[in-house]
Amino acid sequence: MSLLNLAIVGATGAVGTEILAVLEQRNFPVGRLLPLASPRSAGKTLSFRGEPVTVQALEENAFEGVDLALFSAGATRSREFTPSALRSGAIVVDNSSAFRMDPEIPLVVPEINGANIREDQRLIANPNCAAIILCMALAPLSSLGRIERVIVSTYQSTSGAGALAMEELLEQTRGYLANEEPAPEAFQWPIAFNLFSHNSEVEENGYNGEENKLMTETQKILGRPDLKISATCVRVPVLRAHCESVNVQFDRPVELTSVRDALAEFDGVELCDDRDSNHFPMPRECTGEDNVRVGRIRHDQSTPNAVELFVSGDQLLKGAALNAVQVAELMAPRVR
Amino acid sequence: MSLLNLAIVGATGAVGTEILAVLEQRNFPVGRLLPLASPRSAGKTLSFRGEPVTVQALEENAFEGVDLALFSAGATRSREFTPSALRSGAIVVDNSSAFRMDPEIPLVVPEINGANIREDQRLIANPNCAAIILCMALAPLSSLGRIERVIVSTYQSTSGAGALAMEELLEQTRGYLANEEPAPEAFQWPIAFNLFSHNSEVEENGYNGEENKLMTETQKILGRPDLKISATCVRVPVLRAHCESVNVQFDRPVELTSVRDALAEFDGVELCDDRDSNHFPMPRECTGEDNVRVGRIRHDQSTPNAVELFVSGDQLLKGAALNAVQVAELMAPRVR
Repeated sequence: MSLLNLAIVGATGAVGTEILAVLEQRNFPVGRLLPLASPRSAGKTLSFRGEPVTVQALEENAFEGVDLALFSAGATRSREFTPSALRSGAIVVDNSSAFRMDPEIPLVVPEINGANIREDQRLIANPNCAAIILCMALAPLSSLGRIERVIVSTYQSTSGAGALAMEELLEQTRGYLANEEPAPEAFQWPIAFNLFSHNSEVEENGYNGEENKLMTETQKILGRPDLKISATCVRVPVLRAHCESVNVQFDRPVELTSVRDALAEFDGVELCDDRDSNHFPMPRECTGEDNVRVGRIRHDQSTPNAVELFVSGDQLLKGAALNAVQVAELMAPRVR
Repeated sequence: MSLLNLAIVGATGAVGTEILAVLEQRNFPVGRLLPLASPRSAGKTLSFRGEPVTVQALEENAFEGVDLALFSAGATRSREFTPSALRSGAIVVDNSSAFRMDPEIPLVVPEINGANIREDQRLIANPNCAAIILCMALAPLSSLGRIERVIVSTYQSTSGAGALAMEELLEQTRGYLANEEPAPEAFQWPIAFNLFSHNSEVEENGYNGEENKLMTETQKILGRPDLKISATCVRVPVLRAHCESVNVQFDRPVELTSVRDALAEFDGVELCDDRDSNHFPMPRECTGEDNVRVGRIRHDQSTPNAVELFVSGDQLLKGAALNAVQVAELMAPRVR
């Protein structure tokens, strides 16, 4: 494959930083790397493959000669700058919520629906982190029966709220241990040794923004707009891997061995379900790992045809940067 | 009320310490206070109402003259020593799992089923912490319709595993911030900035010990052996308040205003459900509080007749010591 000129929008953020690392690690065919960020960050030097690269200011004409642009700078900047990137001929992978629910834009987890991208698509949306991680656990199971209903409660790490939120967890924890009063900034409530309902606003239907994203994006990724789903999203004092407690109800009885086999065989999923040693998915072990781990697999005793699962995945990797780079890999052959 | 001679078994543990504080705070009519603990802790001095009291070794003849004994030293010691306490004429409130599911022994949350204790009962079991907190949220709702099914995922603090586990969370967190490798002792897995499936063993049915307690005790406390319930219990890096994400399905539609009213009116429950300011139950605010807080009240969009709730309560207070002392208050008039 020929080398591609890549723009990384939001290159200094938590996800942008991780995208650079994933591109290196996966040996993505990068020709010129163009890190873009707010004027405040412009001029900073990043390292890529051992070479220094200078962060440029994100502006309309920044995308000349760019083949592929990965956006991770929030929905507002995506809405403002993806049109210029597309006009410059770049393919865009957008990690924000700006276009995810647009019926014309594919919302892609490569292992699940990467094969469905139409030939003419130039803009691909990268899903919400909690939705990716949930779908990685659900998609393998759709071969066992029709999934009728999903009830999920999340344990979401601070990385989903950005690099400053991760720093706030560490700083505030240091403060707590020194008997200081916390002064929350990134979050509304203290996060050290605490947890709280996700920091997105509660919307008309009583679910918060994150829950609505998780529910609607899961329906779209799985191609199941009719899927019944209810989510509770909670922020926990963990740095960068999310967990999810998931109840999955099928239209027929399923064997636990079939559930385990389907999960173990699926690309990007790792079974972690050792009852004897009480070893199940946990953030500490999933941090830095590409695979989403699934375990605590058991029948739900309260109803026929349902199973319980516990899932963990690195929010910055499969939940964001890794998935975006995988989408870029899928799209690379389409660069004109 | 005349003064009672009280034995506190496990007086130096996390719950025992809290029982002493609750007895003081509620001005329980204590005559003589007898703190009992393992021979290792005997001779230590505790403070009660500003007076020093010496810890005595727990042994068969320790209960002479004791009117009421509160046991919080684990199931093995309860099985071994409650018979001597009962033979000495004491009423026993047992905080262990030893007798909770014995059909002859009442499992009591005073606000819910305190009125049902038979006149001849001398031994009362204090429920599992997660079960008490769940039942405090469910009991008020049983006036709105028959509860058909409950799905609960917990966020359980370290205090439920004892004082050493709380200390381990703090010490390990200090270590993490200083780049030290964690050396877990109280828990099998590192707890600092991590979370994991509850540390009890996974049993035959695929649920772990804590989940089975939570499910069967909830059925017993609510007097609903037929209640369909599925639980996932998870340990989180929080010190002493548990949270629970609860999906409650009724046999009929329920109005959210009725849910809120029923919760707000129930003794020991506090509504914490402010959507506009994103203020919902959280461990930091529930620590040291007697009431169990309930919020995030919304209809479950995935099925008719179900509501979602988020609950938090101090594991050491309503989840253990406070409930035990409330039971002791109920039983005090029965002292012979």
